[in-house]
Amino acid sequence: MCQLLGMNCNTPTDIVFSFTGFALRGGQTDEHQDGWGIAFFEGAGVRHLVDHQAAIRSPLAELIKAHPIKSENVIAHIRKATQGKVALENCHPFVRECWGINWVFAHNGDLPEFMPELNGQFLPIGNTDSERAFCYILQQLRLRFGTTPPALSDLSRTLKELCSEIAAFGTFNMMLSNGSALFVHCSTHMHYLIRQFPFNTAHLSDQDVSIDFSSVTTPKDRVAVIATQPLTNNESWAAFGSGELKVFVDGACLTN
Amino acid sequence: MCQLLGMNCNTPTDIVFSFTGFALRGGQTDEHQDGWGIAFFEGAGVRHLVDHQAAIRSPLAELIKAHPIKSENVIAHIRKATQGKVALENCHPFVRECWGINWVFAHNGDLPEFMPELNGQFLPIGNTDSERAFCYILQQLRLRFGTTPPALSDLSRTLKELCSEIAAFGTFNMMLSNGSALFVHCSTHMHYLIRQFPFNTAHLSDQDVSIDFSSVTTPKDRVAVIATQPLTNNESWAAFGSGELKVFVDGACLTN
Repeated sequence: MCQLLGMNCNTPTDIVFSFTGFALRGGQTDEHQDGWGIAFFEGAGVRHLVDHQAAIRSPLAELIKAHPIKSENVIAHIRKATQGKVALENCHPFVRECWGINWVFAHNGDLPEFMPELNGQFLPIGNTDSERAFCYILQQLRLRFGTTPPALSDLSRTLKELCSEIAAFGTFNMMLSNGSALFVHCSTHMHYLIRQFPFNTAHLSDQDVSIDFSSVTTPKDRVAVIATQPLTNNESWAAFGSGELKVFVDGACLTN
Repeated sequence: MCQLLGMNCNTPTDIVFSFTGFALRGGQTDEHQDGWGIAFFEGAGVRHLVDHQAAIRSPLAELIKAHPIKSENVIAHIRKATQGKVALENCHPFVRECWGINWVFAHNGDLPEFMPELNGQFLPIGNTDSERAFCYILQQLRLRFGTTPPALSDLSRTLKELCSEIAAFGTFNMMLSNGSALFVHCSTHMHYLIRQFPFNTAHLSDQDVSIDFSSVTTPKDRVAVIATQPLTNNESWAAFGSGELKVFVDGACLTN
């Protein structure tokens, strides 16, 4: 199994604090040693960093901590290989273009029997069940909505249907973003919190590190952080229900 | 205008020496300050690093020099913006999946009037003429060959036709790779050399740095290096002719 981290904000925000705790689970406080990856939206572009080394030993992970990248939408993943060899092409998050927009996807769980028919528009490069599910989702979106991207409400409803369909084949905890919304589906484990005014001090669960967010934010900032397991031990993380799809936009959860 | 650097090898090779000289042209020995990028194939995967900072000031460029990445196919680009704002989504190389394979593309030149009809299968995310040309190439490959990737000879012949068609709209120096072959088209400036046994010492043009390749290679190694302008001043670089498409596989030029 793997762990996921997502961030969705109303202003470009760096993810160093959350990523610091999260990356420790990649080989130190947890067993997810088979690669990791992170994708930051910057405007319409995506900065996509993946590595098949454990996150705690990766120079790229050090770079992210040393040179904070600000983004409104981030998805990160640390991997414990279950299906697919340890190779760069199997590292999440995966990125594809659809409707001239970057889509970023990461998955936690197993879908051993999920073998959908793919029409060739989006095909897996590696051999994970996860990338297969991502290709299937994009294919179905294109089949349903043609060459014009749908409104957020239609997109959300369709993704909920597709996630339910895929989750019937196993465990489908997933994060998907098009750079404006972050869609998160939970089969088994997923937690989130919204940080907003008045900001407080947060303390990581995986390392003795605290940050006083009131000193690095403005009163208008709002940040949603979503993770497989809570990353801090003095904040109130809400658990997703099984089968829930939540949609985050501008740091708010639209589906409470 | 921009500059391009490509490498195609028969064994995973690091590009640090060539990249060191090339990156200096990104703001120091030349004026290409509007971003840079590099893509390394690693198996079927691609490590894709892009930055809208000048290469000489980029921490990512430092990382590449400090932690050499070995690859059989690399494409790098430094940018002087002509069309498209300075933004991450406009940084080359561009990456797209077609036939379940990663394709990497970078372009030097201007195609101001090139406005092909795109059917929606591959759409630009940014607003450069370059990404438009890349999407058009992939679209035409899919239209001609359907859901099965063609043999190298058919692919090369088709790319030659497509490059000629696009080059009629302006300047089209470009590099394209599917991870096994590196296709290079020249409109105005492109040079290459093949390094193979017996290896010699090479000296960069842009900095007083030499490397004795005989100490870091085996007799079987073969490396093709392709660049807009020669990178070393004591080796014999061959110039491409205008309108030429050369195909490099396993460090050899197939189209001499």
